[in-house]
Amino acid sequence: MTISNAAKRPDFARWLRSSNDITQQFLAFGGRPDVVSLAGGLPAAELYPVAAVEEATRRALERHGSAALEYGAVEGFPPLRDLIAERIATETGGTFTAANVLLTTGSMQALDLLGKALIDPGDLIVAQAPTYLGALDAWRPRSPSYRKLDWAASDAALLRQAKFAYAVPNYSNPTGVLVSQEGRIALLDAVGASGTWLVEDDPYLTMQLDGPPGPSILSHAVGRSRAAYEGPVVYLGTVSKSLVPGLRVGWAVGDPRMIRTLALAKQATDLSSSMFAQAVAFELMGAGVDRAHSAAILPVYRERRDALCSEAALHLKDWFEWEVPSGGMFVWMRSRNGTIDTDELYKFAVEEKVAFVPSSVFDFTGEDRTAMRVNFTRSSPEVIREGVRRLARAIESYVSSRPQLKGKAR
Amino acid sequence: MTISNAAKRPDFARWLRSSNDITQQFLAFGGRPDVVSLAGGLPAAELYPVAAVEEATRRALERHGSAALEYGAVEGFPPLRDLIAERIATETGGTFTAANVLLTTGSMQALDLLGKALIDPGDLIVAQAPTYLGALDAWRPRSPSYRKLDWAASDAALLRQAKFAYAVPNYSNPTGVLVSQEGRIALLDAVGASGTWLVEDDPYLTMQLDGPPGPSILSHAVGRSRAAYEGPVVYLGTVSKSLVPGLRVGWAVGDPRMIRTLALAKQATDLSSSMFAQAVAFELMGAGVDRAHSAAILPVYRERRDALCSEAALHLKDWFEWEVPSGGMFVWMRSRNGTIDTDELYKFAVEEKVAFVPSSVFDFTGEDRTAMRVNFTRSSPEVIREGVRRLARAIESYVSSRPQLKGKAR
Repeated sequence: MTISNAAKRPDFARWLRSSNDITQQFLAFGGRPDVVSLAGGLPAAELYPVAAVEEATRRALERHGSAALEYGAVEGFPPLRDLIAERIATETGGTFTAANVLLTTGSMQALDLLGKALIDPGDLIVAQAPTYLGALDAWRPRSPSYRKLDWAASDAALLRQAKFAYAVPNYSNPTGVLVSQEGRIALLDAVGASGTWLVEDDPYLTMQLDGPPGPSILSHAVGRSRAAYEGPVVYLGTVSKSLVPGLRVGWAVGDPRMIRTLALAKQATDLSSSMFAQAVAFELMGAGVDRAHSAAILPVYRERRDALCSEAALHLKDWFEWEVPSGGMFVWMRSRNGTIDTDELYKFAVEEKVAFVPSSVFDFTGEDRTAMRVNFTRSSPEVIREGVRRLARAIESYVSSRPQLKGKAR
Repeated sequence: MTISNAAKRPDFARWLRSSNDITQQFLAFGGRPDVVSLAGGLPAAELYPVAAVEEATRRALERHGSAALEYGAVEGFPPLRDLIAERIATETGGTFTAANVLLTTGSMQALDLLGKALIDPGDLIVAQAPTYLGALDAWRPRSPSYRKLDWAASDAALLRQAKFAYAVPNYSNPTGVLVSQEGRIALLDAVGASGTWLVEDDPYLTMQLDGPPGPSILSHAVGRSRAAYEGPVVYLGTVSKSLVPGLRVGWAVGDPRMIRTLALAKQATDLSSSMFAQAVAFELMGAGVDRAHSAAILPVYRERRDALCSEAALHLKDWFEWEVPSGGMFVWMRSRNGTIDTDELYKFAVEEKVAFVPSSVFDFTGEDRTAMRVNFTRSSPEVIREGVRRLARAIESYVSSRPQLKGKAR
């Protein structure tokens, strides 16, 4: 039979109308060899511990055999759940068992599962803002509403209306901000008073460029109880920055009731993640490769951050301002007095063959166009500096095209 | 600070009230060493090609290096997308490129993504019934409605109201039914006339115990056009049965517009699946290991199917009837005259330490309690026969407990 190629098919689901393929666009544009991409949130691929992964695979298949090639438990490869529980117990001083741990396809999948587990249309999320783009993406199919988390004045009354609060206290994406211990404790107090959940997303923990960031919010939540953890914090971790992203191994740590519910949602999503990848991650982490690797790459990332910030100080500071981040992967550059619309600037950047991410995509209202996220982990210092010079030319072109800006901000 | 362990937290999302942990229960019960599990849908783990996976990993890291450890493209590892497109083109006679292919975390994830891409609450799915439990699970968070797909009378008017039709023409789960070519073509004609999508889920393709099943519905849909495929069939495949499940590598093949939309949904779900697992799958498939392996395991599964059916003929045929399936993993046993409630029978089976899956979980109304799904791939012929004898004892106990059944069905 013949099917018309121009067939009109049923409409896609409604949430897709408010979605966009901006991440895919950035990935595609950033992947062009003539483009300097300061857009992505990718580690430096040339540093990946390829030989260690090969060795860990050999060991995983030798030790676990077909168990490393099974569907396995929905909750994940049992030895890795135990290892995560032990590490979290050591780090926080609390009591954690495998029942507190769900393994996920990167911590990104934990965000999807949290949306499935908690959000009905219109339900409220109180989120650190600007907000990680991937979190906004993950929750869009559940149609939540948003209010901004104010670290300076955590509000139990607001939190009481929310299904959960969402925070990235360590070197947040996109801003690079390290939240103070006072801010963390105040948020936890308000969360405790409100009875809601708190999602602490911690992918950048190991990227401590200027020393340790201090205790996680989860650490403050374990309190003095010796019973297995049942607190309100759901903590998300990953090997994507400490080892490699391509294993797609992440974890959610929390109240066993929450873990069981996330596992129900996970079973409905993919039955289980790759046991093979989890077994390899277990061998790598068991041998301490992640800790050695993440320590070894810090000097490289420190040099790249400094290259970005010093070159930007030469070329961009008339129009943008920023704090030098103490960790993570990004510098958050804010247009002085909001004079530059970064959605518009992006078009000039494309002409100059340099990519960044405009602030609008990190704003749940979509309205903030005054800043840009600039990555420093992916490229060499030389390429980063070239990228900054291209950005400077893009800004020049942008400003020239807008006579009303002449003389502003300089 | 101290957090009350008995804290009342926000309600979970509404769909979870209609969900259950039955799959997890089966997995847990079936995993007990004293239980004969005829419940799961698992391959025989002792047959997994462990050495070939190790060799493929070595080759993948040697050939692809850090590219096998990256986030990679949302759509999946490019060489594997190309390979799938080539294979589908050869099998169907159509024209397929990487733009027609999305790689997923098992084909289960493709079901989740289809739900996200197409279903708003109340939207209609016309599904082959009884229906794969995992599909019902995957779509539950989207709150669809269901109508039954009638192979004998495919109904364009009904399909016109549906977001998609869902079919497993080859050795369906749970029934093991092989749909005739006439039935396939009639459905495709009705789908073409209605303008809707058709999801052809084909995980059991390689488990051809009595010879090839004939062309897929996708094959009929490619028609005579030499342009890249844009038809209504979205075809799902996997390596879970032809290689190992633990790689979690599956694919959706379809109209590039659909693939792009599924990729948007996937990006919002996990950014990408494991590139590492996909690179290993690519090396295995490129070397033809999946084809050699799936051919090699057929005699083993044939022997197990025959052990199940011959032992059941000795012990179960007074109360149940079935067709011997020509492929797949399951025998669908229907209670004669519907006299046995298989939800109730399950409790007696637990006492006898044997597990099956009752029909109610495959029914989108939840009402059909007259049949059971019995797996024959996981255990040796001896264990399967012991399981059947335990089932027979469970039936005896069940019937004895219900005096009104005395003399019935025999």
